[in-house]
Amino acid sequence: MALPPDDLEGDRGFEEHHMTPTAGSTAQLAAFIVDTPTDAIPDQMLHEAKRTLLNVFGVALSAAQDHSVDALEAAGDLGSPEAQVIGRGHTSLGQAALLNGYLAHLQDYDDTHFPTILHPSAPVWPAALAAAERTSASGRDVLAAFAIGAEVACRIAMSIHPWHYDAGWHITGTVGGFGAAAAAARLLNLSAEETAQALGLAGTHAAGVREAFGTNGKALHAGHAAASGLRAAVLAGGGFTGPTAILEGRRGFWAVLSPNGHDATWVDALGAPLEQWELRNNGLKPYANGVVSHPLQDAVIELRNQYKIDPAAVTAIEARVHPLVLELMNLDPTVGLEGKFSHRHCAAAALVDGAGHEAQFTDARVQDPQIAAIRSLVHASIDDSLAEDEVHVTIRLADGSAHSTHVPHTTGSPENPMSDDQLITKYRAIASDALDDSGVTALFEAVWSLDRASSIGEAMELASRR
Amino acid sequence: MALPPDDLEGDRGFEEHHMTPTAGSTAQLAAFIVDTPTDAIPDQMLHEAKRTLLNVFGVALSAAQDHSVDALEAAGDLGSPEAQVIGRGHTSLGQAALLNGYLAHLQDYDDTHFPTILHPSAPVWPAALAAAERTSASGRDVLAAFAIGAEVACRIAMSIHPWHYDAGWHITGTVGGFGAAAAAARLLNLSAEETAQALGLAGTHAAGVREAFGTNGKALHAGHAAASGLRAAVLAGGGFTGPTAILEGRRGFWAVLSPNGHDATWVDALGAPLEQWELRNNGLKPYANGVVSHPLQDAVIELRNQYKIDPAAVTAIEARVHPLVLELMNLDPTVGLEGKFSHRHCAAAALVDGAGHEAQFTDARVQDPQIAAIRSLVHASIDDSLAEDEVHVTIRLADGSAHSTHVPHTTGSPENPMSDDQLITKYRAIASDALDDSGVTALFEAVWSLDRASSIGEAMELASRR
Repeated sequence: MALPPDDLEGDRGFEEHHMTPTAGSTAQLAAFIVDTPTDAIPDQMLHEAKRTLLNVFGVALSAAQDHSVDALEAAGDLGSPEAQVIGRGHTSLGQAALLNGYLAHLQDYDDTHFPTILHPSAPVWPAALAAAERTSASGRDVLAAFAIGAEVACRIAMSIHPWHYDAGWHITGTVGGFGAAAAAARLLNLSAEETAQALGLAGTHAAGVREAFGTNGKALHAGHAAASGLRAAVLAGGGFTGPTAILEGRRGFWAVLSPNGHDATWVDALGAPLEQWELRNNGLKPYANGVVSHPLQDAVIELRNQYKIDPAAVTAIEARVHPLVLELMNLDPTVGLEGKFSHRHCAAAALVDGAGHEAQFTDARVQDPQIAAIRSLVHASIDDSLAEDEVHVTIRLADGSAHSTHVPHTTGSPENPMSDDQLITKYRAIASDALDDSGVTALFEAVWSLDRASSIGEAMELASRR
Repeated sequence: MALPPDDLEGDRGFEEHHMTPTAGSTAQLAAFIVDTPTDAIPDQMLHEAKRTLLNVFGVALSAAQDHSVDALEAAGDLGSPEAQVIGRGHTSLGQAALLNGYLAHLQDYDDTHFPTILHPSAPVWPAALAAAERTSASGRDVLAAFAIGAEVACRIAMSIHPWHYDAGWHITGTVGGFGAAAAAARLLNLSAEETAQALGLAGTHAAGVREAFGTNGKALHAGHAAASGLRAAVLAGGGFTGPTAILEGRRGFWAVLSPNGHDATWVDALGAPLEQWELRNNGLKPYANGVVSHPLQDAVIELRNQYKIDPAAVTAIEARVHPLVLELMNLDPTVGLEGKFSHRHCAAAALVDGAGHEAQFTDARVQDPQIAAIRSLVHASIDDSLAEDEVHVTIRLADGSAHSTHVPHTTGSPENPMSDDQLITKYRAIASDALDDSGVTALFEAVWSLDRASSIGEAMELASRR
């Protein structure tokens, strides 16, 4: 499977493509959201939901220190403390969704639905969490609501990909609101009719263009989608009306936001066997940089750990890589952010630190003499025969020996998902930016037992301490 | 001038049309917002701003009783009471913008920029009011901020009309946020750079499709634009970054939300002499129904008042009308809302009540025996030679006499704007849905003297009592 372009790629050109709209597509979605019993959701999907939440807590805790969050928080208000913001504390329902969505996407370190580049967690989880705090839903019901909401978002994303993204839309911002509304509608016990209204209110407020990439606006898209979707569900539950054929309507989402093509069949036949869940194709990111360098990082860490390589003994890191690695990740970095666009820095940090979190992309780490020296030892050559998620790496040592490996599918891809252990390691590393060791562990345990918890309350309390 | 289609019309077909983008269009807008001294804004524009605010207070007071507002209010929160909601009381800044925008557009009784069908007040005023409450800006500065914000919105609307609307977008929702951000940026004293960021954050969250027409979602578009634009300005002032070439950028507003055409020249050369202000082409609605029946109502009220016609003496109301009147306004009404789509009811209510406010479109008024009897006396015939804002009407009486008139341009059109007296009469009639006589008068006086007021505070207090 090709790697998703991670919002870095240019346009892929354009094909005209029109499918006959399916009558009542939105009603089908609404019924799916309302009628699917939790027990009919495969256990693996609930487990996946728990995994993504753990990941969200980690990345959001780490992101909660960013200065821009102060501005975002100040733009809203802190009254009526009904819900909680990760790493920040109590606030209103809508504000919590906005901030948590923003936090979840700020570092581009959340999850990615590989076929569409949708980031489902950032918009869907905050809406689910806020709704669950209002209704005191059980942990299991919260997990189910996320799985449903994320699936709705992924299916709608499939129905308009690639035309919508290629036209300039940030699919996480636009489609995310549908998923947020779906998750919240479920937790708020909306009827199918109300849920269709909620999807309509969410869909008509879909927003986010790729022009905002590289600014705080990109993460705000996710927060906006979360808050807008949550608001849509709360409103619909309160009798507020919205367009009930938002997808298939003459001036609805498909016609207006994806005029060059859509495939309505993606919102048919949802759920059912595990093989049909799109959420399966959602990958967690092991490294906080562009995905095209991930196979290289995988290979270096694998060799480092297997052969207990001393970085000081390394004389060369030779890699055969997919062409996109040099096209997208070839900066010579001087500050932290640039390190995320340097395959050499990614490889060097992987060798020295065995990781690629935000901590590996600070100014200090990029300017570290040892890492800078190792960057100069990285030699990548293009191999057109490789897949995007594939790499060959050889590390040469001062004693003349060499160790080689081949990564056929990078960690975090659907063919090679992050293991629970890898995920927990990532969570611990990044959550420690905000919590002490006991706090990191307590939150992990609360999330990991969420399917048996009476509510999301304990986890949110632990996650939201300021 | 043709009437704007009042969001009722179908597509007008499609022309390919592309102009070369103007480099730095957004920066020009930002400079215009920041650099235009209040004294350089024509007095007529400030007066116009005051007029539209009075109108907003009226329509919002009247709308404040609607049940759906309870749902919208409950969806947000009421903490941190920094700003006020018309007819409702104190709330947070963002919530005030959302609710006031919603209230301003709920009855479709706000203003209309005739060339584009943009409704500028509903998104722009709420943002200006909330920002002004935060900064205690002078009344004059508030009026200036609205004029600037509305102009920005009208100019951007011109740059994408008709392609954008014809593609299915609700231009008030999409473009409104730019205007809201502009007005707020000014009141918050943002720099030009910050203002460009604010326009970017507003523009990337532009939303609203015409599929939502006929639902609460349509008015929510305006509230959403107001709140999103205000948020954009507050965020930009707090150091939050947004895309600074949101209009002209490769994946910006023009490319993504109006791919079939745009004309960048509309955002050049703003301000300057009065003749160049698009806000001039903004009309206030004299009647709370579709605009195509307005000439008919004008004519009936003119004859009624001039000849002191007793409705009981009328035997026929004969009209020669533009074809759209029968195409769009030919319902046989049984409930209040249907009355808005019946030219016969509009004419009958105009004869009996001399008005066409919400009070003329209640179930009771539609079912009133006298009005129902007069509806059956209305006979309209199509005259293809008439303009949309034109009508010929003859009223025949039982004594055999008849009175005729010709309305060449309907009230509220740029060629025949509502007079101050007509506007004040409208305001008094609809504000009385929520305020007693002394309250109606006090608020009128506060608004009418706003250019000399030290702040918007008194007006907001008077308008926002619950």
